[in-house]
Amino acid sequence: MIDVCLLGTGGMMPLPYRSLTSMMLRYNGSSILLDCGEATQIAVRRRGWSFNPIDLILITHFHADHISGLPGMLLAMGNADRTEPVTLVGPPGLERIVRSLLVIAPRLPFKLEFIELEDIADVQTLNLLGLEIHAFRLQHSMLCYGYSFTLHRAGKFNPAAAKALGLPVNYWGKLQRGDTVSYEGKEYTPDLVMGGARKGLKIAYATDTRPIAQISKEASGADLFICEGMYGDGSAESDHKAREKKHMTMQEAASLAANAEIAPEKMWFTHYSPSFINPQDYEESAKSIFPAAEVVKDRASLVLDFEED
Amino acid sequence: MIDVCLLGTGGMMPLPYRSLTSMMLRYNGSSILLDCGEATQIAVRRRGWSFNPIDLILITHFHADHISGLPGMLLAMGNADRTEPVTLVGPPGLERIVRSLLVIAPRLPFKLEFIELEDIADVQTLNLLGLEIHAFRLQHSMLCYGYSFTLHRAGKFNPAAAKALGLPVNYWGKLQRGDTVSYEGKEYTPDLVMGGARKGLKIAYATDTRPIAQISKEASGADLFICEGMYGDGSAESDHKAREKKHMTMQEAASLAANAEIAPEKMWFTHYSPSFINPQDYEESAKSIFPAAEVVKDRASLVLDFEED
Repeated sequence: MIDVCLLGTGGMMPLPYRSLTSMMLRYNGSSILLDCGEATQIAVRRRGWSFNPIDLILITHFHADHISGLPGMLLAMGNADRTEPVTLVGPPGLERIVRSLLVIAPRLPFKLEFIELEDIADVQTLNLLGLEIHAFRLQHSMLCYGYSFTLHRAGKFNPAAAKALGLPVNYWGKLQRGDTVSYEGKEYTPDLVMGGARKGLKIAYATDTRPIAQISKEASGADLFICEGMYGDGSAESDHKAREKKHMTMQEAASLAANAEIAPEKMWFTHYSPSFINPQDYEESAKSIFPAAEVVKDRASLVLDFEED
Repeated sequence: MIDVCLLGTGGMMPLPYRSLTSMMLRYNGSSILLDCGEATQIAVRRRGWSFNPIDLILITHFHADHISGLPGMLLAMGNADRTEPVTLVGPPGLERIVRSLLVIAPRLPFKLEFIELEDIADVQTLNLLGLEIHAFRLQHSMLCYGYSFTLHRAGKFNPAAAKALGLPVNYWGKLQRGDTVSYEGKEYTPDLVMGGARKGLKIAYATDTRPIAQISKEASGADLFICEGMYGDGSAESDHKAREKKHMTMQEAASLAANAEIAPEKMWFTHYSPSFINPQDYEESAKSIFPAAEVVKDRASLVLDFEED
């Protein structure tokens, strides 16, 4: 089960009624924060989630609206009695940037561990906290990454097959965890007792960027695809701004979802321009391209769970 | 006329219902910002004041809750089309700290000019934007300054006296501005036509600190004295925390006001601890020490104007 909260939906600057774009996932006792602009800590408080279990913070890029809240967030985690190390993932230069920001928070009660992405590969895979995380390169005015999170699910265990093999019950768990078992001089592999892999859970997240094919690939098969829709009123001016500032319109984002090999189950827009007062006015236009597209507000939340067998 | 807004009243961390302590003054077309914690830019937007005219930013000290919002504030000022230089005043090391924070805002459309206070003097006087500003050393866990702002007011011009001297009207303005005038071989000094200096306007601001005598001196004669009251429930635990963390209780702050030679007209508390949920419950206790003391909330505002003649 994964809890998802899109903590904020704004781009560029925090507004009284719209927090900066940031997402939190909760899985298996850990919280994962994706981006941390100014006042993201307030958005976490509004949602009522805790600062202590944030084990992993991923940063898309180093524009202030995606990272300026980091010193305050780390201090809030310290005030919440966190002492375990925290892993930070982001573009090359991450450690230098974070250390520079921490000039005003020089003493934290936990260690920071940095994973800097490479700026050459299109997609880099990280296996952290039981999730397969893809960091994929976007096309913005500075090096920027999208992220997708996949929770894989093993096939269903077949106790009848295990019994038929004559394996005692105390060997079953090992096979279920994917290990090979030796019993009375014979080797038993998991595939003898496990069905094919079942559908897991997947969340894909892409902002700030021009539309590129890799986003559709990452959105394919997602339970939830969160994507920037910074503009969307269909005016020539907005379309021009999107191209010029390396952002996307809702319609461009919806087309990315429509082009995914397996259509994402849900799609939420985010990173609305401060000048975009009523993005919901343009939801219909986006839905005409990808029907599952939704214009959501701060703290849009979802609980993702495995399908019933 | 000076507009005052206490943008926030919180200490340590921004809360959904309480912004971090920060004050804005507006005088003669300029805005002056005093401290800039995380999300102070949201508080400015809530108040409805503009980012563009912020000519001066004063920082009390380098704890994150007093400066972490600076990169976002400067970016917001840039987005508000500011191009004129901005002066920053603060403790020694200011420029290094600010430059370090600006790693995520490397290109601003205006220049920054730094005035670093000395760490030796008790009181340093700056004359900026037509105001006499005192930076006075406080007693905190790091070097920290309070500030007072005085707008002096000249005496009243006496047109009858000017007439009696036989001075033509076109010389009057110069005398009113404090300049000496030569007319038909004679010198005329302003005191010949101006009454004694009248009461000006004064605002004193002190947080984060233990109570010290200098605060009473700066509060003396103030129209508004804003002072930290981080704790105040009267418990031994709060009193201990105040001493240990180098902060003040409301009662200690009220005593500072009561000890001022000329009692300040109004007194507002600020910098409430996040654990201090209902500071208004203790207003009566503070008023019993200094009757003008008030427990105010975010965006408490006041317009200060010269007395009627």
